[in-house]
Amino acid sequence: MTTITSNLFAEFVGEIVAPDPKWLNQARSHLDNLTKPLGSLGRLEDIAARFIAIRDGEIDKPLKKAAYVFAADHGIVAEGVSAYPKEVTRQMVLNFLQQGAAINVLARLHDAELTIVDVGVDADFGDLAGLLQRKVRSGTRNMLHEPAMTEEEMLQALHVGLQLAIGAHEKGQTLIAVGEMGIGNTTSASAITAVLTRQAPAAVTGKGAGLEKSAQEHKIRVVDAILLKHFGENPYASAAPPLEVLRRVGGLEIAAMVGLVLGAARYRIPLVTDGFISAAAAALAYALEPRVREYLFAGHRSEEPGHRVLLEYLGLDPILTLDMRLGEGTGAVLAMPIIESALRLYSDMATFASAGVSGASE
Amino acid sequence: MTTITSNLFAEFVGEIVAPDPKWLNQARSHLDNLTKPLGSLGRLEDIAARFIAIRDGEIDKPLKKAAYVFAADHGIVAEGVSAYPKEVTRQMVLNFLQQGAAINVLARLHDAELTIVDVGVDADFGDLAGLLQRKVRSGTRNMLHEPAMTEEEMLQALHVGLQLAIGAHEKGQTLIAVGEMGIGNTTSASAITAVLTRQAPAAVTGKGAGLEKSAQEHKIRVVDAILLKHFGENPYASAAPPLEVLRRVGGLEIAAMVGLVLGAARYRIPLVTDGFISAAAAALAYALEPRVREYLFAGHRSEEPGHRVLLEYLGLDPILTLDMRLGEGTGAVLAMPIIESALRLYSDMATFASAGVSGASE
Repeated sequence: MTTITSNLFAEFVGEIVAPDPKWLNQARSHLDNLTKPLGSLGRLEDIAARFIAIRDGEIDKPLKKAAYVFAADHGIVAEGVSAYPKEVTRQMVLNFLQQGAAINVLARLHDAELTIVDVGVDADFGDLAGLLQRKVRSGTRNMLHEPAMTEEEMLQALHVGLQLAIGAHEKGQTLIAVGEMGIGNTTSASAITAVLTRQAPAAVTGKGAGLEKSAQEHKIRVVDAILLKHFGENPYASAAPPLEVLRRVGGLEIAAMVGLVLGAARYRIPLVTDGFISAAAAALAYALEPRVREYLFAGHRSEEPGHRVLLEYLGLDPILTLDMRLGEGTGAVLAMPIIESALRLYSDMATFASAGVSGASE
Repeated sequence: MTTITSNLFAEFVGEIVAPDPKWLNQARSHLDNLTKPLGSLGRLEDIAARFIAIRDGEIDKPLKKAAYVFAADHGIVAEGVSAYPKEVTRQMVLNFLQQGAAINVLARLHDAELTIVDVGVDADFGDLAGLLQRKVRSGTRNMLHEPAMTEEEMLQALHVGLQLAIGAHEKGQTLIAVGEMGIGNTTSASAITAVLTRQAPAAVTGKGAGLEKSAQEHKIRVVDAILLKHFGENPYASAAPPLEVLRRVGGLEIAAMVGLVLGAARYRIPLVTDGFISAAAAALAYALEPRVREYLFAGHRSEEPGHRVLLEYLGLDPILTLDMRLGEGTGAVLAMPIIESALRLYSDMATFASAGVSGASE
C-alpha cells in the first residue's frame, strides 16, 4: 500500500468545505410546512435539515448505509489498563467475521454494509475471508515510554481511513458509521481528550470495558504519566498540533478513524460517531479542520465520562443515551434508523396545503 | 357495538398477572454470556430482559408490530386552550387516511401495521375506507362545566381499546404502539396528571401543540378551574377512583387508550407509550392495576412538563429523548427499532463460549 506525505494529507484536508447554509434554511422552511405543529418533531428536524444541507439539498432515498470497524492493538496494555486481555482484540475480529458480535447483529437488522478493517491487530490472520487487511504495524508502541507511532505509521493509518472514504464515495454510500475494537484504546482516548479539551485525566478516564475502582485509579495514574512523558509538566498549555497528539498517544485504529472522518467530510458523506474512542478520533479531525463538525452526527453518548466532554467540545448532541459502552460502532448503527426516520418524515409527509389542514391560530 | 358493565370490566382487569420473574433472571444470565463486556449494552439489556419476561421466555422473531391511533374531540376547546382549531382533529384523521402524516411515514418505515380509530371525532366521516369507526360520541362535554363523559360513554370507549387488544392478540401482534390525535387533549392529560400525581396544574401544564406564554397561563387557570369543579378545594387530597378521574376530566381517546393498555397487559403484549397523553392513559391504567406497568415501555419523553412527571409516577425510563411533542404515536413507533435491536442482540449474538472469546480478568 502507498503512504502519503504530510503535504498530500494537508491538501486533502484543505478540500473540505462547509455545507451551503442556503440548504439548511430551505430545509427548515420545508419542515415548517409539514402537517405537524411547528418544531414538534424536535431534534428529528435538526437531523433532517443538517443531513439535507450536507447532501446539497438532495434527498437520498433509500439511504445507502455502511459501517466501518477498525481493529488494532495497543502497547499500553502492558501497563494493566484494561479489564480484558489483549487477545480479545484478535478474538473479537474473528467473532466479527463469524457474524456473532453485537455490531454484526445491528448492521444486519439496520441494513448497513459492514467492513471490518485490521489496521494494527497483533496477530497474523493469514488469508481470512471478509477481513480488510490494512495492517500498519502489529499494535502501537507502549506510549508510557515512547510515541505510539512514527509519523509514517500514523500517516499510513490515516490513509487507510481516507481510502475507505474514497471507496464509500465511489459506492454511493450516503450514511456511514464508524466504530472500533482495540483492547486498551480507552486509555488513548482519555489521553487525547485530556490534551484536546484541557481536562485532567481523572475527569476523562473511565472504567473502559469494565475496570474495578482501584484499577480505574491505576489507569488514571498511567494517563497522568503518559501526558507528563509526551507533553511535559503542563500538558494543558501544550500547543501540540492534533497530529502530534495522535502520533504520540493515539492508536492505529484511531488514526484510521480520523482519516475516515476527514474523508467523509471531504466527500460530503454524513458520518455517525459511536462511543468514546470514535469521538476522540472525530475530535482530532475537528481540531485539524473545524468544518468536519458539520458532517458529523453523534450516534450516542456512552457512560465514559470523557465521551460527554468530547461531545461538548464537538458541539454535538447525542441521538441516543442508552448507557451503552460497547464500541464496535454499535451506538452509531443503532442511531441510523432514527436518522433515516428523520429523512423519511422530511420527504414523505404531506404539507398543510396539500393535506388541507389548518395551521395554528393567529 | 356492545357496552360492558363495570363488573365485566373489573373481571377483565383482574385477569392481568405479573410476568414470572424467573424469565427475567434467565434472560439476564443469557445476556451476561454474550460476547460483550458485562452490561455494556446498557438499557438495551433491560429492554430485552423485560420483553423476554413479558413473553414468557419466548423470542418473537421477527416482531409483529402494530400502532393504534385514537382520535377524538374535546368540549374543553371552547375555553381557548389550544393553539389549533378543533377542525384539525378531523383534518388530521383525513391526513392519516391519505398516508400524509408523520405516523404514516414512521409506521411504514418501521413496518408497524397502523390502525386509525375514530372514538369521538366531532365530524361525520361517512363510509371512509381505512378508518375504524368506533365513535362513542362527537367529542366530550366541556369539562369546565360538567363531566367529560357519562359512565356508559366511558365504559364504551374503554371497551373500544379492550376489543382492539383482543384483536391484537388474535392477530399475533407482539409489540404495539399507542397514540392519539385530539385537539385539546393535553388539557385533559394535565388535569389527569395533576390529580394522579398530586402536582399543581402549573407544574404539569405545558404549551401543548404550541401555545404562547400568555395562552399557556390561561390554560393553567382553566385546569385549575376544572380541578376545583370536579375535585373540590383540595383536589390532591381527593381519593377519586381512577375511572372517576377519567370520566370527569378525561377524553374518549384517552379512555380507549386506557382500555388498550389494560388489554395489552391482559394478553401479555408489550405496549409502547408515546407522548404526554398516552402516558396519562397508561398512568390511569396503572392506577387501576399496578401490574400493567410491567408490560409498558416508554417510547420517548416529550417536552411537555407533565410527561416527565408521569414517567416518574410510572417508574419508566424513556427510550428516546429527542424533544418531540407531536403525538400520533410517533415517539412510540420511533422507539420500535430500538426495542427490536435489543431483541435481536439477545437472540443472535454469539456467547463467549461459542465464539472462543476470553472474559474479563479475574
